[in-house]
Amino acid sequence: MAAVPQFRPPHDGPVLEFERRMLDAMPAIERWFRMQWQDHVPPFYGSVDLRNAGFKLAPVDMNLFPGGWNNLSEEMLPCAVQAAQIAIDKLCPDARNLLLIPERHTRNQYYLSNVARLARILRATGLEVRLGSLSDEVTAPTPITLADGESLLLEPLVRRHGRVGVDGFDPCAILLNNDLSAGIPAILRDIEDQVVVPPLHAGWAVRRKSNHFYAYDGVAADFGAMLGIDPWFVNPFFSRCGQVNFQEKSGEECLRANVDAVLTEMRAKYREYGIADEPFVIVKADAGTYGMGIMTVKSPDDVTGLNRKQRNKMAVVKDGLQVHEVIIQEGVPTYEWVDGGVAEPVVYMIDRYVVGGFYRAHRERGINENLNAPGMHFVPLARENTPFSGSCNLPDCKAAPGSSSSNRFYAYGVVARLAQLAAAVELERTAGAVAAERFSEPVSAPAALVAAG
Amino acid sequence: MAAVPQFRPPHDGPVLEFERRMLDAMPAIERWFRMQWQDHVPPFYGSVDLRNAGFKLAPVDMNLFPGGWNNLSEEMLPCAVQAAQIAIDKLCPDARNLLLIPERHTRNQYYLSNVARLARILRATGLEVRLGSLSDEVTAPTPITLADGESLLLEPLVRRHGRVGVDGFDPCAILLNNDLSAGIPAILRDIEDQVVVPPLHAGWAVRRKSNHFYAYDGVAADFGAMLGIDPWFVNPFFSRCGQVNFQEKSGEECLRANVDAVLTEMRAKYREYGIADEPFVIVKADAGTYGMGIMTVKSPDDVTGLNRKQRNKMAVVKDGLQVHEVIIQEGVPTYEWVDGGVAEPVVYMIDRYVVGGFYRAHRERGINENLNAPGMHFVPLARENTPFSGSCNLPDCKAAPGSSSSNRFYAYGVVARLAQLAAAVELERTAGAVAAERFSEPVSAPAALVAAG
Repeated sequence: MAAVPQFRPPHDGPVLEFERRMLDAMPAIERWFRMQWQDHVPPFYGSVDLRNAGFKLAPVDMNLFPGGWNNLSEEMLPCAVQAAQIAIDKLCPDARNLLLIPERHTRNQYYLSNVARLARILRATGLEVRLGSLSDEVTAPTPITLADGESLLLEPLVRRHGRVGVDGFDPCAILLNNDLSAGIPAILRDIEDQVVVPPLHAGWAVRRKSNHFYAYDGVAADFGAMLGIDPWFVNPFFSRCGQVNFQEKSGEECLRANVDAVLTEMRAKYREYGIADEPFVIVKADAGTYGMGIMTVKSPDDVTGLNRKQRNKMAVVKDGLQVHEVIIQEGVPTYEWVDGGVAEPVVYMIDRYVVGGFYRAHRERGINENLNAPGMHFVPLARENTPFSGSCNLPDCKAAPGSSSSNRFYAYGVVARLAQLAAAVELERTAGAVAAERFSEPVSAPAALVAAG
Repeated sequence: MAAVPQFRPPHDGPVLEFERRMLDAMPAIERWFRMQWQDHVPPFYGSVDLRNAGFKLAPVDMNLFPGGWNNLSEEMLPCAVQAAQIAIDKLCPDARNLLLIPERHTRNQYYLSNVARLARILRATGLEVRLGSLSDEVTAPTPITLADGESLLLEPLVRRHGRVGVDGFDPCAILLNNDLSAGIPAILRDIEDQVVVPPLHAGWAVRRKSNHFYAYDGVAADFGAMLGIDPWFVNPFFSRCGQVNFQEKSGEECLRANVDAVLTEMRAKYREYGIADEPFVIVKADAGTYGMGIMTVKSPDDVTGLNRKQRNKMAVVKDGLQVHEVIIQEGVPTYEWVDGGVAEPVVYMIDRYVVGGFYRAHRERGINENLNAPGMHFVPLARENTPFSGSCNLPDCKAAPGSSSSNRFYAYGVVARLAQLAAAVELERTAGAVAAERFSEPVSAPAALVAAG
């Protein structure tokens, strides 16, 4: 039943060369990560969308409030529990109670299955886990039955002085599975003596993709130097426009100029490495998520004179958040396909450990399009076909690259961990940004190719 | 092909009750372990032989230099690698090189497969791993080809001032997979600035089973108090005789008296809990291993007037070590059977994590006999039948006990970790014992029922 991931020729040649390089350098890579994690505290958890073009393998998005835990295979759970134990130990080693705050939408069965899975992993570490809801609809304990018969109890949050919990439950730690797109709720501000992870400034009320990729630039440069490769092989170019209003058609000039600049840089790299693909860039909300507010652009002309439908699509993202800041990111084609669709791997991490992943596949989208869109499906590949069930840390170094999927997934685990490391750096740099939330410029100016508009 | 473990009725009733208790208390148990590991440093690795009688589940032996890594299923390896990363981080976080010192016998393919597997796990953490041999036969780098075509390179140890390595290789850490039954080699003494794990005093030149089980008494008492159970359910009685000479027939009186005392204590417990079994004790070398020097005893008369063959069997264990110290341990019958044989689970741990296990089964031995004997076989059960491949940390708490093998294995993982914790306490207490090696009395007097002879 399980589909084997495949790679479109002739793009399979470069990917194998890249995997070989990773495999040969495994001890150096692992040691490098070990040293990096001495200087940086990994986020509690994260998931990374990767795109594998054969000639390059790069993260295109990094989620600090990962949903979709229900998409991972049962087999990866033991490693997830082990990693969660480590993460909890760091938070509060004598913790007994943990409060999990999910997204507000209480009727999405798919999302609620994710919450149930996550709670199961956390409970297996020995914590009492209760669910505190930010939803106005949850005014009393609200049981919800899931499709598989399991049930969840959503409870209203209770604030007492500097602490947050639910009725009769005072947690040591609060784990957010809510990305705070709608802003930081008052009830979560100025909490004392309780650990909130990820920190409030990791939420989309404050976070910017451009801050992440700016931190990633540094991580990729260090990694490239260590491995002796052009960091571009694991890093997409990007730029940013800070004052765009799609509905008012303002900021178009900034968009045009930056799209042009990124495409120009890409063309130079494509020439350097003899890549015949047509370059494209992805324009997306700098604070967006859920695959909303994203478009594929092949020319600066594509971003001017957008029609009403296009402008509406770009103007608003999740929870009605207005888009005024935009990131222009080098598009990385994906030449993998799974189960009849174009596919991109999504890798899940807890603390510094890769704990699983799956493919996001889409039968109606092209190799240069966002796959996080209605019609996508998830392929939690079976154990015999992929060690995504947990073996991202155990390649078969002696096997030829490509002969074993564990070797490909080792490479995926490496690049995903680069993004996790970049998130750690990003969160360090943006700490303290909650007070100044909705700041209009990134904390550290990204290496914009053209002055941001 | 894979055998499902089965439990002989009527012994399946009590085992289910016991599992239910463990499952219900999982958060409390996990939290208790978390607190314990704040006070004690887990051994680098360990394996524990368990016996499950239904009415009790207890460790009967704890190996600090586990072989048999090759018996674990491939599926458990990712968790093993993750746990090894954690353990290495503690040893020397910037480690690049690790020296693995295996047992001397270089021709045992079975053992060498274990070494290869162990090296593979360690390499996956990002270490360069080389094998340094204590064997006199290894005077130059000696390649050895394994049955599966893989090859190992054994190299002679090189000592330079206070450091040990192999030619051109100066490791940060030295991992012993040699239990030092033959004594502590001069080349490993007084090492400076290198970490040796497990420590030298964990080797059988110094270690005593009675010290371990004395520490285990304390751990089991604390655990029993936390869980509200009689610690006897997870702890076998034991006693010790310190001056036995089987060949000279001396020390028989001590043996008789202690066998009688342990049997008397057992009868009282059997009466208390209505257990109809015939009590038996296991007499074994206090410093022995490899299943050598072990006998099953049902009456004090069984240990007097041994014939020459019996005496010879008890007198000498691995590497010609003479037996003068003996532990008399409550026998725990095993009512599990697997693949047509009486079976006992063996659980493997790295640091504080259960990383896998298998059944040791024997078709020609009884429920009250040592199974670590010629004719035994190993059953690395298949994933669908057992989560020994790594799921010892993820029971299905809502399922009825016994309905899922993961629930049984959760209980096994708990008791195995009690033994790992006891080993931590034991090693703390016996630290510094290397100088005084071959001391004739245990470091802390065990709760001998009768004064040791």
